[in-house]
This record gives sequence, structure tokens and C-alpha cells, in this order.
Amino acid sequence: MNERIKAYAAAEAGAKFESFEYDPGDLGPEEVEIKVSHCGICHSDLSMVENEWKMTSFPFVGGHEAVGKIVAIGSGAKGLEIGDTVGLGWNAKTCGHCDKCIGGYQINCSELVGTIVERHGGFADRVRCNWDWAIKIPEGLDPAKAGPLFCGGITVFNPFIQMDIKPTDKVGVIGIGGLGHLALQFADKWGCEVTAFTSDLSKSDELRAMGADQVVNSRDSEAVGALAGTFDMILSTVNVSLDWNAYMKALAPKGKLHIVGAVLDPLPIVSFDLIGKQKIVSGTATGSPFVVRKMLEFCARHGIETITETYPMSKINEAFDKLKSGNAKFRLVLENDL
Amino acid sequence: MNERIKAYAAAEAGAKFESFEYDPGDLGPEEVEIKVSHCGICHSDLSMVENEWKMTSFPFVGGHEAVGKIVAIGSGAKGLEIGDTVGLGWNAKTCGHCDKCIGGYQINCSELVGTIVERHGGFADRVRCNWDWAIKIPEGLDPAKAGPLFCGGITVFNPFIQMDIKPTDKVGVIGIGGLGHLALQFADKWGCEVTAFTSDLSKSDELRAMGADQVVNSRDSEAVGALAGTFDMILSTVNVSLDWNAYMKALAPKGKLHIVGAVLDPLPIVSFDLIGKQKIVSGTATGSPFVVRKMLEFCARHGIETITETYPMSKINEAFDKLKSGNAKFRLVLENDL
Repeated sequence: MNERIKAYAAAEAGAKFESFEYDPGDLGPEEVEIKVSHCGICHSDLSMVENEWKMTSFPFVGGHEAVGKIVAIGSGAKGLEIGDTVGLGWNAKTCGHCDKCIGGYQINCSELVGTIVERHGGFADRVRCNWDWAIKIPEGLDPAKAGPLFCGGITVFNPFIQMDIKPTDKVGVIGIGGLGHLALQFADKWGCEVTAFTSDLSKSDELRAMGADQVVNSRDSEAVGALAGTFDMILSTVNVSLDWNAYMKALAPKGKLHIVGAVLDPLPIVSFDLIGKQKIVSGTATGSPFVVRKMLEFCARHGIETITETYPMSKINEAFDKLKSGNAKFRLVLENDL
Repeated sequence: MNERIKAYAAAEAGAKFESFEYDPGDLGPEEVEIKVSHCGICHSDLSMVENEWKMTSFPFVGGHEAVGKIVAIGSGAKGLEIGDTVGLGWNAKTCGHCDKCIGGYQINCSELVGTIVERHGGFADRVRCNWDWAIKIPEGLDPAKAGPLFCGGITVFNPFIQMDIKPTDKVGVIGIGGLGHLALQFADKWGCEVTAFTSDLSKSDELRAMGADQVVNSRDSEAVGALAGTFDMILSTVNVSLDWNAYMKALAPKGKLHIVGAVLDPLPIVSFDLIGKQKIVSGTATGSPFVVRKMLEFCARHGIETITETYPMSKINEAFDKLKSGNAKFRLVLENDL
């Protein structure tokens, strides 16, 4: 019999997390098991525990920004050893043989399994995944702060690769929370001119310290309108509707409005705004393993770090209360005391 | 005094075309004058004569798919000679020194002057433009059928270049009229798998002959829905609202819904459709001179030709009646008898 995994689970939609144990079964040949030292809390953990997206199974063990050492390894796992410090994000498994996987776009595999979708995640002493989604954390990155890179970080790093952003570009970031504060640092170290769009101007000095060249009120259509024709990419991390037409007009010719925040209302995109100056509306979620590796190297080389508030994992419910308050600065991380 | 130009003009919004003459003034040093042999009729000529876009000045001389020989040339015009056969499309002049012009994206020049916007176009014996927008027609292309390439053609050719379409891609074309019938031929000769979306299935055999591998009813959401996950690009040439959500779902991962038809209602784009499989909504209008040159070479090499119905220019009002009927197959061209 396998050693049971100790975790925190919610018994039903919106419930508090409580102690929970489960038998993980035999380790698959392509799987690794990670002893979780830290696990970030992502806003989508909250969406999942509240079953907002109608795809949560209960009891629900969240946590998909996990970091720790490998303690068990399947016979078919490649490039990893017991004791390696790795991170695990939203994605836990892909098929490995479809066109997308074999082409390096594992993120588009139709058999992709999410770490916390119909399986148990990183709010636990241990968590498992397929070897290719357990990605080694390079020297120079603090494992205590690296977890959020594996979901929040890759979500805003991937657009720079996928949308072919150049250091000569002007980049705006809408919403400066867990994702946005990393996006500002990425854009700054990428060599871009950086504008932070936020509804909380009291953070302006902090945002400038992260790399913002200017800070603009995201809800002030006039202020956004004054920037017409400026941006090569505007990266939106928010999940609320804004004056999207003003942001479309703020794009330079060939500019991209890139959406990573799941807004519930459709975006009313005007065809003339697309056609007249060859603009683009696009979106992505997380990124493939190769891009995660590139991001980690880039962070280590440039000293890019998540700004974290840390709670012991046993205080998970207090941490979620802080998340719900909207006052986390900028990403919450649980330190394992299980 | 300069020789007056003989033309057909509408005196006010929606009026019939009547004989009209004007003094073109001195030829600018960077200008050329083209003796028009043929001029295509584009749907935007109709929008302009009816002042749909509130930017028409009257008397209005339309025509922006003009072909003919150069009969006068300014001292600063480059790469052209008297007697060259050239074409002129929507764009007649750009500044030549801004970042966009100097970078080869003249189409995004903020000082771009349209051939029929506050100046007189090609429904005339002669028309003028800056030298860089008078583009030589290569050997092997029939000048009588080449005019429509300069607006309708480049509008649907440019996306293949700008959106980086590969011969391994699957391409759908929505709306098979003046633009769409050229898009089918481009996509086929580009090496792509080609789907024609049309509301008129009676044309199916013709569309297959142009290169369509399959023909689908563009207004049948179920038929479109059955193609979920298929297309790398869907190119929409229509100016009516369709079930855009079905077309978004018909895109493959990383697929692009590319808009070249000016739809008046906003497209309601769902953020999850963008994020989940990294999709894109984009748009372009016409193309820069370099891309026009590449298109003409490509057409000559592959035998791509506009399918035209020709009227003498003196029958311009009959030709417009045919355009309004929606029954033109596939592009109307006026042959000069002025």
C-alpha cells in the first residue's frame, strides 16, 4: 500500500479547507512525486473551490503553483532525478504523442489534464504529475518565491514569446496583481517601454520600482484615450469588463490586445478597429514546458521575483480570506507545515 | 494649362454618374499620370457614392482598381517610365519618411491619401498617384483583368503574408464574391486545404474549380459547428453579422479569425474562446507596395486571374446596377471608351 497523501480539501462548493488524506495509488511509469515545500495561491484556486466554472470535483484539493523536491520517480520519467527541486503549474499531464505535443505546443494537447481538475493538487505534503510538467528550478531562483511563476508567471510570460514581442515595443499591462506585477517586470527586462494600467493609483511608486515607466488609471477612458495609437501590445490580466474600445484605439498599427484574464462578458470588437490599422485581439493560457524553462532562466538571469506574502499551509483558510479581500501584495504563498 | 481629365462623377450621395471634367493642375514631382484602360468596381465605390462612411466629397469620381499606361511622370518618380503598364488601388499617396513608410509598412502611414477620398479616381480617362503606389504589372497578367487585384485582391492576399500562413495550414474563406473568389485561388495555390463558406451553394462547382476542397453553408451554424477545431485561418470577406462564436470554435488551436469585411455590428468575442486554445481575431485592409508586387508575381506564376464581367465605361450606371443586384460574377470591370 502507498503512503497516504496529507492535504487540505474543501468538501463542497465554497466550503472551508479541512484536513484530508487520500491514497494516491501506484506511481505511474511517467510520473514523479514532489514533496511540496511551497505552493502559491492563484485566483483560479478560488474560482475552482467555488465551482464557478462548473468543473470542480469534491472533495477538492487545490494548489497548482507547487514547488518542492522529487521524492519518487517512475521508470519512464526523463531528465529528472530524486532530489531535484521542481515546480508544477496548472498542467499536470499531456499525451506526449499528438501533433501538438510532438511539436512543442503541449499546452494545446486535447488530452491535457489540469493539476486540480478531477485530481488532487499542491495544498498537500506531496503532489504528482507527468515528468515533463515537473520543471527544474534553476540556480539563483528562491524556491520559496518560485511557485507563482508556474501559473501566474507563465501566463504573462508566454505572450511575449508567442506574440513575438520585441524589446523596441511599447507594452501596457492592465491590472497589477499576482499576474500583472510579474508582467511589469518581464516587460521591463524584455527591454520594452512599460505602462501600468491600474485602478489603484496609490501603488504607483511600487509599480515604477517594478519597471513601469508610467502608471495610468485603467478605468479612466479619457486617460486611456489620450494614449491612442501607442501600444504594440496591451496585456490584460483583469477579469472585469473595461472600455475595450478605448484600449483598441490605444494600440499602435499592428498592435495586439492580448487577453489572459477570463472576462465573462464578450468583448465587443469593432471591425473597423481591426481593419483600419491591422490590429489583433488574442489570448493565451499558461505555456508549454519549453517556454516555462525559458521563463525560469530569464527570471534567474534578471533577478525577477514574485513579491509574496507567506502563510503556513495550516493557515490556508486565512490565506484565502486575504485573497478574497483583494489586498494581497502581490501573491500569496503557503509554506508547508504538514 | 493642363489638359482636362474626362471622368464620370456623382453630383451628390446616391446620384447617377454623369460626364464630368476637371483640371488636374500641375503634375507633382513625385506623381505619375496613368491613362486608364480598365478600372474595376469595388463594393467600397458603392459605399463611397452613397456616402455610407461620411467621408465622400462631391462631385465624386470613384474607381480605385485602375490599370493603364503611364503617360506623364514627375521628375522625382523612381523606377517607372513613360509607357509602363501599372495598376493603382485604394492608396494613392503616403508620406515616404515616417517610421511606417521607411519600414515598408506604408499602409500604416498616418498621412495616407486614398485614391477616391477628397480626390478623383479611376472612372476617368486618366488618374494620378504618387509613383510608389503605381505598381508595374508583370508579363503574363492580362491588364484587362488585373485591376481588381489592386484592391480586392491585395485585401485578401495581404493576410497570407501578414498572418504568416503556411502551405500546411487549413484555410476557410467566408463570402465568395469579388474578394472571396480571389482568396480561394490564393489559398489553393499557397498549398493550403481550402474551405469555401458561402450562402449560395448553387455556386459550389465553380468554387471547387477555383480551388475549394469543400463548400459549406456560411449561415448554417450546425455545419460550421461540425468543423470545430479545424482552421488555422478563417478569412471573412462579408459585411454582415454571422454566428462568430461558431466560427471561433471552428478555429484550430492558435487559429486566426481574420476580418477584411467591414461589419457594422461589433463582434462579440468570448474571452474563453481566445484564451483556451490561444486564438486570434485580427483584421487588415489592402497592403503595402512590396506585398502588392509579391501578389502580382504570385498571380502571374500561378495563373491566378480575376473572373470579370466587363462593361464599357460609358455604361457605368448599368454596371453599378449589376453590382447592387448582388449577382456580379465575380468582379465588374469598366473598359475605357472615354
